Amino acid sequence: MSAPCDARGSFPVSLAYSPLIAQLVDALRTLQGVGPKSAQRMAMQLLQRNRPGALRLAAALTAACEGVGQCQRCRNLAESPLCALCSNPKRDRRLLCIVETPADVLALEQSGSYTGTYFVLHGRLSPLDGIGPNELGLDQLVHYLAEAPVEELIIATNPTMEGEATAHYIAQLTAPFGLKLSRIAHGVPLGGELEYIDGGTLAHALASRRPLQL
Amino acid sequence: MSAPCDARGSFPVSLAYSPLIAQLVDALRTLQGVGPKSAQRMAMQLLQRNRPGALRLAAALTAACEGVGQCQRCRNLAESPLCALCSNPKRDRRLLCIVETPADVLALEQSGSYTGTYFVLHGRLSPLDGIGPNELGLDQLVHYLAEAPVEELIIATNPTMEGEATAHYIAQLTAPFGLKLSRIAHGVPLGGELEYIDGGTLAHALASRRPLQL
Repeated sequence: MSAPCDARGSFPVSLAYSPLIAQLVDALRTLQGVGPKSAQRMAMQLLQRNRPGALRLAAALTAACEGVGQCQRCRNLAESPLCALCSNPKRDRRLLCIVETPADVLALEQSGSYTGTYFVLHGRLSPLDGIGPNELGLDQLVHYLAEAPVEELIIATNPTMEGEATAHYIAQLTAPFGLKLSRIAHGVPLGGELEYIDGGTLAHALASRRPLQL
Repeated sequence: MSAPCDARGSFPVSLAYSPLIAQLVDALRTLQGVGPKSAQRMAMQLLQRNRPGALRLAAALTAACEGVGQCQRCRNLAESPLCALCSNPKRDRRLLCIVETPADVLALEQSGSYTGTYFVLHGRLSPLDGIGPNELGLDQLVHYLAEAPVEELIIATNPTMEGEATAHYIAQLTAPFGLKLSRIAHGVPLGGELEYIDGGTLAHALASRRPLQL
């Protein structure tokens, strides 16, 4: 365990920290977006004012790590063989939306405008990182398409280079099933101002322009 | 457990979260400065990519909650009866710095310019919140001063109204010991620009101006 340092890294403060606190500060830094100062503030707040909360967090972490696996059908995070979305008979199984991460599922669900099912890749094609079709569960996708009543495949990978490559790969892979294939629209976000939108997005928004319905 | 909602609170997404994940997201929000979106992102990152890190964090939380208590002498957070600073024979026991929180001790240690000992109040006088001299361990401070070789008391409570009131109370309480009493300086921070400093600080900086040594 490295001794924690201040921003300039000049003074080791290991004497002021007790080892258990140093270990806690270190562990808090594994959380996304938490730097040394925030971790220290979190540790102090928990130890000084909210030990029950800290113990509850520890229990929740352990329970989630042990209990949460992948849905057998859509590969979303789930704690039963089928996730709540896949086992919900009200979801439209004719629509299948392919996303990169479970967080994307949440984002789409929060939009409240999608009633179909999902398939979670847990990443995108990235040969340099050793992520190929097998790592993304595409064999599982093909098996699922062969037996499920899917009519439309909505590919909602991110509009990055790797996300686009993944979308193309999936489009080619699933072509034999003769499904309706679609890609979510990319363009100017609602409430966005043209002035502040990057050039790539604007180019995309222009190229994908639609006729105005009067 | 309340169902997590999006920013507008309009769509319950409990169906997309599994209960264990919802519980984890909820527990992560007890951390200081973590809102619903950050908590969700942290939970997803831990579950998808860093389960060993999550388990390590759970263990560190439990160990710290169980192992960290207060130093008998300075009331700083410590896992042995005396903290590392109090048991360090190199620290100057003639200097005693009174601070509000253990985080203040860390901040002063990180400055690398103080070699004395500390006394941690764990708060400030706040009668409305039921925080009086006993809650701040001031009886313990008096006992300590009666037997320790302290020569100067540096009062480093925060320059807030309650912090100033606490400083005055401690000054009066410890007057019988005939110690040298001092208060840390308040003024323009190093690297600060007058233009951006608040009026209260500037007024303080002017009132506490010092003769220039040529």
